[in-house]
This record gives sequence, structure tokens and C-alpha cells, in this order.
Amino acid sequence: MPDRARNPQLNANGELTHLLSIDGLPPDVITHILNTASSFLEVSDREVKKVPLLRGKSVFNVFFENSTRTRTTFEIAAKRLSADVINLDVARSSTAKGETLLDTVDNLVAMHADMFVVRHAASGAPYLIAEHLRRVGRDDVHVVNAGDGRHAHPTQGLLDMYTIRHYKKDFTHLKVAVVGDILHSRVARSDIHALTTLGTGEVRVVGPKTLLPALVEKMGVSVHHDLREGIEGCDVIIMLRLQNERMNGALLPSASEYFRSYGLTPETLSAAKPDAIVMHPGPMNRGVEIDSEVADGPQAVILPQVTFGIAVRMAVMSILAGN
Amino acid sequence: MPDRARNPQLNANGELTHLLSIDGLPPDVITHILNTASSFLEVSDREVKKVPLLRGKSVFNVFFENSTRTRTTFEIAAKRLSADVINLDVARSSTAKGETLLDTVDNLVAMHADMFVVRHAASGAPYLIAEHLRRVGRDDVHVVNAGDGRHAHPTQGLLDMYTIRHYKKDFTHLKVAVVGDILHSRVARSDIHALTTLGTGEVRVVGPKTLLPALVEKMGVSVHHDLREGIEGCDVIIMLRLQNERMNGALLPSASEYFRSYGLTPETLSAAKPDAIVMHPGPMNRGVEIDSEVADGPQAVILPQVTFGIAVRMAVMSILAGN
Amino acid sequence: MPDRARNPQLNANGELTHLLSIDGLPPDVITHILNTASSFLEVSDREVKKVPLLRGKSVFNVFFENSTRTRTTFEIAAKRLSADVINLDVARSSTAKGETLLDTVDNLVAMHADMFVVRHAASGAPYLIAEHLRRVGRDDVHVVNAGDGRHAHPTQGLLDMYTIRHYKKDFTHLKVAVVGDILHSRVARSDIHALTTLGTGEVRVVGPKTLLPALVEKMGVSVHHDLREGIEGCDVIIMLRLQNERMNGALLPSASEYFRSYGLTPETLSAAKPDAIVMHPGPMNRGVEIDSEVADGPQAVILPQVTFGIAVRMAVMSILAGN
Repeated sequence: MPDRARNPQLNANGELTHLLSIDGLPPDVITHILNTASSFLEVSDREVKKVPLLRGKSVFNVFFENSTRTRTTFEIAAKRLSADVINLDVARSSTAKGETLLDTVDNLVAMHADMFVVRHAASGAPYLIAEHLRRVGRDDVHVVNAGDGRHAHPTQGLLDMYTIRHYKKDFTHLKVAVVGDILHSRVARSDIHALTTLGTGEVRVVGPKTLLPALVEKMGVSVHHDLREGIEGCDVIIMLRLQNERMNGALLPSASEYFRSYGLTPETLSAAKPDAIVMHPGPMNRGVEIDSEVADGPQAVILPQVTFGIAVRMAVMSILAGN
Repeated sequence: MPDRARNPQLNANGELTHLLSIDGLPPDVITHILNTASSFLEVSDREVKKVPLLRGKSVFNVFFENSTRTRTTFEIAAKRLSADVINLDVARSSTAKGETLLDTVDNLVAMHADMFVVRHAASGAPYLIAEHLRRVGRDDVHVVNAGDGRHAHPTQGLLDMYTIRHYKKDFTHLKVAVVGDILHSRVARSDIHALTTLGTGEVRVVGPKTLLPALVEKMGVSVHHDLREGIEGCDVIIMLRLQNERMNGALLPSASEYFRSYGLTPETLSAAKPDAIVMHPGPMNRGVEIDSEVADGPQAVILPQVTFGIAVRMAVMSILAGN
Repeated sequence: MPDRARNPQLNANGELTHLLSIDGLPPDVITHILNTASSFLEVSDREVKKVPLLRGKSVFNVFFENSTRTRTTFEIAAKRLSADVINLDVARSSTAKGETLLDTVDNLVAMHADMFVVRHAASGAPYLIAEHLRRVGRDDVHVVNAGDGRHAHPTQGLLDMYTIRHYKKDFTHLKVAVVGDILHSRVARSDIHALTTLGTGEVRVVGPKTLLPALVEKMGVSVHHDLREGIEGCDVIIMLRLQNERMNGALLPSASEYFRSYGLTPETLSAAKPDAIVMHPGPMNRGVEIDSEVADGPQAVILPQVTFGIAVRMAVMSILAGN
């Protein structure tokens, strides 16, 4: 656990000022986000789904990597907080004209940006921005990591924790399995950090050797290569999306072969506890990592994850703007 | 006329809950939309062009097929109703990642979408979404068809009816000609259904044999292959856009050939009634289906159609949200 | 100086109704914009960065040429004035379907547009639109030129004047150098017109012969081909962006060759006055037209330019909407 004083996500008072990664986030900060999300969940159910907490604030969705789904969740969250949202499709813009990342950031700060939601193919890009803001003395501008390379996707990790807490209450007695392409998944990394930080009883990773990172055991998880064995007795199963580009590559024989070994079917699912919940960050590949009967079945909580995701993002944004 | 009880566009009380097609819409529902549009027309003329009817509602423009023009009209209409509008360029998003249409919809519903404005190259896609929403019990979420394949473009049909009613009052004595590529036109289908539903005196279709659907007479229209003859004595002429891809294809010799036979010129127009109005859904191909002298002349009501279109879309959205 | 009565940017009362070019703008109009911008600068520093001046107005960003940076500045400015903003990526829309520019404009006017922010690769396009609006009697609809071909970029010219006035107060005693690719730069043209209109003591252009327009002296500037000589004793240095497409073309040997002759380094900068300010319209090519040490140094006012740019655009929009 990193030193709170040196944590780039926290300000001098130990409050959250950027959300860059779950790695290094103190458990009380995570719990505070989840509790705040709880209060926002109710806002989305209202007739008028808006609160004025970010009125007049300018939130920039700066997506160096295209992701309509994730961008949309942040856009909705910010609009429900009454912020002005500006979407920057940076792939098509000034960076293409040879401008550096930090020059782009400096320009947006000069336009009085209050918050950056950043997606980048390079691990560490949001850190670089946060560090730069600190150096130029702009601790009133906040960064949210919306996915950086293989590194982290902290709001996904937080919404997964919200989902688990919602259905299972306490983490200490839970057995949780994360299944699939751990190697390339920022979701897996964020989930594992969050689960261990919150004191989860047992965390397992399940997947073929070619899709597990070396030394993954050092993250405090046990490793399984057999799906049935890996989810046996589990309370929570987090399925990961298999990226299309892996399916016919060197790492995997084929999508149907993968499904035979690692696709979650009703039959395999029976190895878990009867009240186990099944999660997936979406978009799903039905018939690849998950069978439709499971995806649409009573144990799936995949759509509630999406609903909680909006509340969690509203919580993160309002906490950052308030600190 | 379909049974009101089984009409997927109407709820249990017979009120409009989706706008999918004009086919099957009872005349009183059409009239109610036109009357409501009338009241919104005034809003667009105000100093502050906004009413709070959809404040805090989330309207998603889900365009599986790109159409900046149509998307813009819905975006303006929704913003003038104070809704939060989120544009999804779905062609570039998760469906490209292999997600199914209904998974995309379920996800947006989980984000608390209130309304979907859907454009799709496949006929029936909006029906599929509406049917799915019914099946999952979400009758608080509404679908507006913004054009599906060759099938329907109901808001265009409604704004055309608004335009005709505005200039000609009663439908029962009118002679209306729809001219051009009827075969590939969802606008033509929507207009013909609306005109017959509202009891129009006579509806004609005019075009070359290769651009008329087989058995078009079954829709209650008379068929003409000669333009002058087809518009003779008409009160209303609805010109259709000739898609570029037809112009040099197997169906037509060339654009200039088409213009010679079916382009509306001042000379041909003189066959219609002297006070006939000329309509076009835009964007126009000047010199292909319509001569500039007609397009810019005193009988053209093409720009008023656009103005009425915003009011009609505001009416549809506010009626759906209210039911 | 053109006749005020015939100036297409001014209405019958001599008030600004379009912003098309700084060429022909009376000095009192420029000063009025700068003074108004001054009051908006404070808005961007507030907790709630919004004023209701354009509430319910529809501002259309009509970009026939892609420019995320410029579009963003207008979008932020309009949103801080509480306008509804609709972004039209026209390159991908109806013009591609063969519609004329003026048909597109007529359609948007029929949707009750209040203001067009227009970017176009063709010089004169915003004039054409303004002239068309006058002809159809719509003097309640306003046009802002956001860059047309090589011709003009008036809001950039105005924000540059704001910046100079902010740091140097009076123009009459100033020596100002504009450095780089004058030939292809609309920024240079706008700056030179503004500087001469405001009575700047001396305006110089500096660049290689191949990148200077013929007869540039007629604009009231002196011409220099040597950088050091050109900026000697200057109070203000405006560096221009070197477009990538020039770098390896017939006009220039290479980017590094350009830097050796015209790149602003600390060493060259020492030829200017010690308190000279260095400006750049962005995005910068570090190591091509400007050295990083200068770009990040104490004399650079490049980021304040961006901040002033938002205020200037808010001023222009609010003045137009009020007239």
C-alpha cells in the first residue's frame, strides 16, 4: 500500500483529487465513493434525473481511444450532475497535428476545464496529466481515468465493488473468481486491487496460461486453469470480455475452442454457490465467454452493473469537484 | 387498419407509447400529434425557445445509419423540450464489437434512458426494440422511428401532413401526387399511409416502372408513369429525392434523362392547380428531381416543411413522454 | 477602410451583425468587443461559469473543415452563455449528398437557428452565407467566421489584440512582428488588419520569400527575411504555426532547416525588447517554429491567449445576439 502522503490521487488533506487507479486507494476512500454512489442511485429513478452539483462546471471527455460505451456513461453522469460536457474526439484532432499530450491539456486548462475524463491506449497517460497539473499548480482541475492501456479502469472496478456489496453485503467471507483474459484486461487489474483492498476472503483468477500475466500470484490471488474448479464454491464470478483480436491469434486456437473451455454455461455455473452472481463489464460476446442462458439468467447482474456504473461515476465526479 | 388493442405503438389505454410507423396509427392519434405540434410552433418563435417538458429526461439518438440532417432535427427538438440529449454514433461503437442490437438497448435502458430515437438500415429494427421493451416490462421507455430501411419514416410523414393541413386545411377534397422513386422511399410509404388514413380525396404515385413497387395500387393509390398527367389538377405535389446510387445504375439511364422525364419544372407544374403546393423531404438534388425555379418559387413549401418538422418532433416526444 | 453603410458585417445602425473579417471593422467596434470580453473573463473564473445571455438560443457550429480545437472554443463559449449548441460535422453530411451550401443554410434557418459559427476551406464562404441571409431578410440570424480558407480568422485576430492590449496597454507605440508562413495564414491576415486598424506603431512580417504573399507591403507592413533583424526591438512577437504539409514541399527544404532560420529560440528572442511577449495561435510545433524553452518561458503568453479567446468569443456571440 503506497504512502498516503505521496499518493498522486490524494490531495494534501488525504482527500481524493484524481481517480487514476484503484491500486493505492485507501479502503475508506473506496467505501466513501460507494456510499456516495448509493445516494445518487435514487437520482436516476426520479422524474427529473438531475442535481445541480456540477452546474457551470466544464467536464471534458478526452478520448484518445474511441469508446462510445464508456464515453456515454460519463456523459450521462456529468449531465445528471448539470455539468457542461464537451466531448473531444482527440484521435481526429490536434494531436494528429503533432501537438503533445501536455500541450493539449494545457490548452484545455486555459479554457477553464474543471475535469478531464481521459481514455488512452497508453498505460499511465492519466497519471502523466495529473502529475503535470500538480506541477503547474492546478489542483482545482481533476482527472478521471476512463481506461489506460492494460493498466487500470478504476470506475469499472468501483462499480463492480458496488455491485458485489449490493448483492453480498460483506466482502470478508466471499470467494470471487475473475475469469478469462486476465493478461490484457485493465478491468481485471482494477477488480483484483479493489477486492484485495476491501479484504475479500478469497480471490481467484481463472484462464488459460497464455492469457494470465506472469507472477499474477503476487497480486494476492490463486490461479486456476480449469473453469469448473476455478469457480467452485464461489459467491461471485466476474467474466471478462474476450477481445476479438485474441480469438484467432497465436494465444488462442479459436473462439469456439475458447467457449468449450472457458465459456460460462448453466452446467459449469452449477459448480459455484447456488446464489452466486455472474458479472460482465460488457459488451458481451455471447457464445464466446458466456452462454446466453447464463447472460439472461437469474444469476446474471450484468444490467444492474450498468445502472450502478452511472451512480458510481456521478459519485466520483461530485467527490472530486467537492475536494 | 390494425386492431388498436394489438397495435405495438399504443399502450393499454390506446395512447401512443412508441412512434414506429404511420401504418396502423388511428386518425385521431395523428390529428392529436398535429394539434400538439401547432402549439409548439409558437415556442420556436420565442426569444427563449425552450419549454421544460422533458427536463431531466435522457433522450438517446441511436443512429445505426448516419444521417446528420435527421439527427439534428431530433436533437434540436429534444433540447427545446429541455431534455438531456446523447448522440450515439453506433456504427463506430459496440455493435462493431459484436454486441447484439438488443444488448445495446438493454445497456442504455440500464443507464435510465427515457427515449430512443432510432435510425437503422434494416426495416423493422425499431419494432424489434419496442417489442423487446414490452417483453422486459419497460413501458416507460419510448421508441421513435427516425427511418428504418425502406419501410417507414413516420415523423417525415407527419410533418408532411402538418404542411398539407396548414396550407390546404381539409384532406377530403384534395388530390395529392407523390412523384419519383417510390420503390426505395420510406418517405413515400409513410406519406401514402398518412394520406389514406386522413381520408385524402385522391392519392397518386408517379414514376418510371422500375421505381414503383409491385402491387402499389393495393395501398389505395392510382399509378401514373407520365409526370404531367400524374400531377394534372393536383393540389399537392410531393417530390421525392432521387438517391445518387440509383442515377447511374440499372434502374435509370442517367440523372439528366431522369430530369427530362420526371424533373419538376415550371412548365410541368402548370398542369397542377394554380395554387398547388410543392413539397420535398430534402436534401434536394437541384436539376435532377426538381428545377431550381420550382424549388425557389412561390409554390414551394419546402422550408416551411423543415420548420413544421421541428414542431412535429417536439409534439411526438412530449406526447410519448407524457403517456 | 470600407464604407460603414455598405459593410456586410454591420446592420443599418452600424452595429455588428456578423463577424466575417477584421478587414473593414471600425476601430470602435473592435474596442467594444475587447471591452465586452473583459467583463466575460471574470465569468470563467466563477464557481458557476454561466450567464443566461443566450438561453434558449440555438447556435450551430457548422464545420465544413474539421477543427476540434476551434470548434471546442466556440462550443464552450456558447455553453457558458447558456445557448443550446448543435455541432454539425458537415463534411460527413448532406453536402456530401449533393446539397448546396445555401440549401444547407436555409434548412438550418428553417429550424430556427440563431447563429452560425462557420469554418470552411473556401475563402468567402461565411460572406456568402451572410449575404444570403440579408437577401432573404433574416437579419436576426448571425454568422461568425471561424476560419475561411487563407482569408480570415477574425476571432483569433481579436483574441490576439486582447492579449496585446492586456500586456501592453496602448498600441500606438508598439513594434509588432508576425513571423512565419504569412502566405497561407488567415491568422496573419486577421492580425495585420487588426493591428493597423488599432494604430499600431510598426507592424513587421518576417519569413522566407516563398512564404510571403506578393505585395504584402500594401497591407501597411515592413518585410523582413532575417528573423533576428525582423524582431529586433519588438514589443510583441506573433509566431505562426507551420502547417505540416509545407514542411517537405517545394516551398521549404525541411522542418529542421526552417527551425534553423525561423525557429524562435532564447538566443534569437534576445534581439527583441527584454519585456517582449511571445504569442502563438496553437497548436504549436515545438522544435519547428518555436523552441520549447521559449514556448514554456516567462515571455510566452500562449496559454493566456487561449483563456482570452473564450472571453472574446463569448463577447462576439453576445454582441451579435443583442444587435
